[in-house]
Amino acid sequence: MTDKNNNQHRVVIIGGGFGGLYAAKELGNANIKLTLIDRRNFHLFQPLLYQVATGGLSPGDIASPLRAVLNKQKNTKVYKSEVIDIDTKSKEVVLRYRTIPYDTLIVASGSIHHYFGNEDWAVYAPGLKTIEDALEFRKRIFFAFECAEKIKDISEQKSWMTFVVIGGGPTGVELAGALGELANTTLTKDFRNIDTTKTKVILLEATDRILPTYPEKLSYDAQQSLEKLGVTVQTNSFVTKINENFVTFKTGDLSQNINAKTVLWAAGVRASRMGRVLNKRTKVEIDNIGRVIVEKDLTIKNHPEIFVIGDLANFSHQTGRPLPGVAPVAMQQGKYAAMLIKNRIKSKESKSFIYRDKGSLAVIGRNSAVASIGRFRFTGFFAWLIWLFIHIRYLIEYDNKVLVLTQWAWNYFTRKRGARLITGTDYLEILKKEEDEINSNLKSG
Amino acid sequence: MTDKNNNQHRVVIIGGGFGGLYAAKELGNANIKLTLIDRRNFHLFQPLLYQVATGGLSPGDIASPLRAVLNKQKNTKVYKSEVIDIDTKSKEVVLRYRTIPYDTLIVASGSIHHYFGNEDWAVYAPGLKTIEDALEFRKRIFFAFECAEKIKDISEQKSWMTFVVIGGGPTGVELAGALGELANTTLTKDFRNIDTTKTKVILLEATDRILPTYPEKLSYDAQQSLEKLGVTVQTNSFVTKINENFVTFKTGDLSQNINAKTVLWAAGVRASRMGRVLNKRTKVEIDNIGRVIVEKDLTIKNHPEIFVIGDLANFSHQTGRPLPGVAPVAMQQGKYAAMLIKNRIKSKESKSFIYRDKGSLAVIGRNSAVASIGRFRFTGFFAWLIWLFIHIRYLIEYDNKVLVLTQWAWNYFTRKRGARLITGTDYLEILKKEEDEINSNLKSG
Repeated sequence: MTDKNNNQHRVVIIGGGFGGLYAAKELGNANIKLTLIDRRNFHLFQPLLYQVATGGLSPGDIASPLRAVLNKQKNTKVYKSEVIDIDTKSKEVVLRYRTIPYDTLIVASGSIHHYFGNEDWAVYAPGLKTIEDALEFRKRIFFAFECAEKIKDISEQKSWMTFVVIGGGPTGVELAGALGELANTTLTKDFRNIDTTKTKVILLEATDRILPTYPEKLSYDAQQSLEKLGVTVQTNSFVTKINENFVTFKTGDLSQNINAKTVLWAAGVRASRMGRVLNKRTKVEIDNIGRVIVEKDLTIKNHPEIFVIGDLANFSHQTGRPLPGVAPVAMQQGKYAAMLIKNRIKSKESKSFIYRDKGSLAVIGRNSAVASIGRFRFTGFFAWLIWLFIHIRYLIEYDNKVLVLTQWAWNYFTRKRGARLITGTDYLEILKKEEDEINSNLKSG
Repeated sequence: MTDKNNNQHRVVIIGGGFGGLYAAKELGNANIKLTLIDRRNFHLFQPLLYQVATGGLSPGDIASPLRAVLNKQKNTKVYKSEVIDIDTKSKEVVLRYRTIPYDTLIVASGSIHHYFGNEDWAVYAPGLKTIEDALEFRKRIFFAFECAEKIKDISEQKSWMTFVVIGGGPTGVELAGALGELANTTLTKDFRNIDTTKTKVILLEATDRILPTYPEKLSYDAQQSLEKLGVTVQTNSFVTKINENFVTFKTGDLSQNINAKTVLWAAGVRASRMGRVLNKRTKVEIDNIGRVIVEKDLTIKNHPEIFVIGDLANFSHQTGRPLPGVAPVAMQQGKYAAMLIKNRIKSKESKSFIYRDKGSLAVIGRNSAVASIGRFRFTGFFAWLIWLFIHIRYLIEYDNKVLVLTQWAWNYFTRKRGARLITGTDYLEILKKEEDEINSNLKSG
């Protein structure tokens, strides 16, 4: 099955996220044989996943079929499959029923969410990494408002109208902002029995400020913006228990309960399984969340033919701390790895990888964002415009995604969220659950 | 729980499809208490469901939250629930845990697909009525191309590249057209091992022409348009067997097999369960597919307070045959029922219902549609423009759906289908199934 008809250099990329895709695009004009492997058939624009979760965008708006994105690259094959193992001796990627040989391998399989040893929390507080996760969020959020509308018992109703977002990184902040906006603008006229402006959105962050990887001033601005949208921000708050009715968290020695039916997880991530595979096969070091310690050129120790990039990589050569797991890092690393491979083919030297931080951005509801670009910090509408501009710039590289921005702008000006559908093949069960909730409440209430 | 605080006339509508929603909108300014009950939280623009099924549009594009559509109507409550029964004696709609009393009831619960006694076919040939159905179609269609790309055995590959659409009504015709276009334009550059233009799309119709409820000339035009897109149209073909590997059909006495991995059902529908409920409670007659025989004013015999409209109604007073189950009939009947209720409140007489056929339309891939408007018939690009115009006109009544048309026009001019994602919470199982298919083929091949 291996292609040995000629001696072209074979590059295999595992993962079609920002890292893998940018590497693939950069290699599109190289005289190599390129195979991109992903278990999904699309690239996902993860920074906008929270918009799907809150009904602002549809899944199709933020996903591009990998085949379509890469179909102009004659040297590229897309292979939809799960990777089982990497045989670093024979230089083959092991799939379930075949292997794919490589001369150079780029591993960019990203990260998954993780509950620090409390994996049973996943049921009550799902995480946000995939399209399916986002639809689960959307279902839970709008299901909660439907329940609140029907229920008579005031304390139960409050519990349905309380949303806890755990984790004050960019995803948690943007999600909490979108929820605040949903409750205070989008939905205000839609219900008859509840006043959605009474919705409580609580953002819990374990460290002393939200957006801890951003400049301090921005954290402060973001918190202010969130509070304007009715979000309660609780820092230094460490979650100790989650179940279907409440969240318990500790602030110092003080333990508190929040009665909430909807809890959304935006806290920890850990590296994907490929980190452990590489560790086992090559003895490369991995850190406490499974990221692979990479060299200055993003390859791994003793294996110059293996690159690890994006969320899976721990690159600490620049600041002494690992670079954050965000899209710009993955993109730049993808491009760097591709450039280095092209240099090698031409027997050219390459410099070490350096991440150029073009700024940090978070969008907090309509009309407000926080941005830090070089020495400058922006907030409010101007930051929002910058946010929009940067996203337009990246999105238009794929497919028809300029339309997403039209949709987004439309939502912005009309304050509407047209995609707030409760869907799923289990929709009749959802309905049954909803009615059972209310019935048990009627009996006890 | 019943509202008896005042003597306002209470109207309850079951179903938020075209019939129910148009009735509700028309009653928005009436001095009544209106409750719309639907088990889903959104109205679905069903005529464009085949676009979701083929990756042209996202679910959110063709669905509008019912609460949002009706939120300006102060007299209207939306109740998301399943209807269990209708107590026509006490005049109450029975939900699982409560009842809702009515003075006037509009039943508009539509139709479901149906296999003429071969319900086991549903597994192999799913139908297209819900968002979930459309995503199932989308999954199967793009899954098939992925399998074909990977598989080596030529006959198996052919089988994955053969699509059978059963039923030559508007849905079947539009679906087959979209599949033909997908194979012959959208996907041509996306694969490396298969030539998607070799895809076979076969449309099976039991009667002697496709679009049997349309003027004869249009059927002919539609067939020509389909054939240009590479679709094989088989009329007088009656399906006798479906399993996971092939479809058997009879043309006259001749029985034929088609090896096809993907079979899509666009044939029979029957009325929803509410028809049987009304039959049991009021002895009203129902026809062989469960539709309720309605009077000239769309009410049912001996129950002037109960209207039945849309796909659930069999209205044969105008032509001697039941009106077709299409959106324009449902809309006009919804408006009529609402108008009649308003007249009654003012003690005004009403005329019988008359359906005004504003024309028939089907869109067959890019650049082509067939239309019949009054004495005129159109085909090709001009018909497509009319189709677009009419859909714009209806879509903009809801929410932000003008964007759908932008998306549609974009797809039209770029021939792209950005929403061709394989999704579902079972995506890892899908992947496993795909790989197992290929493996079993590798072993046997």
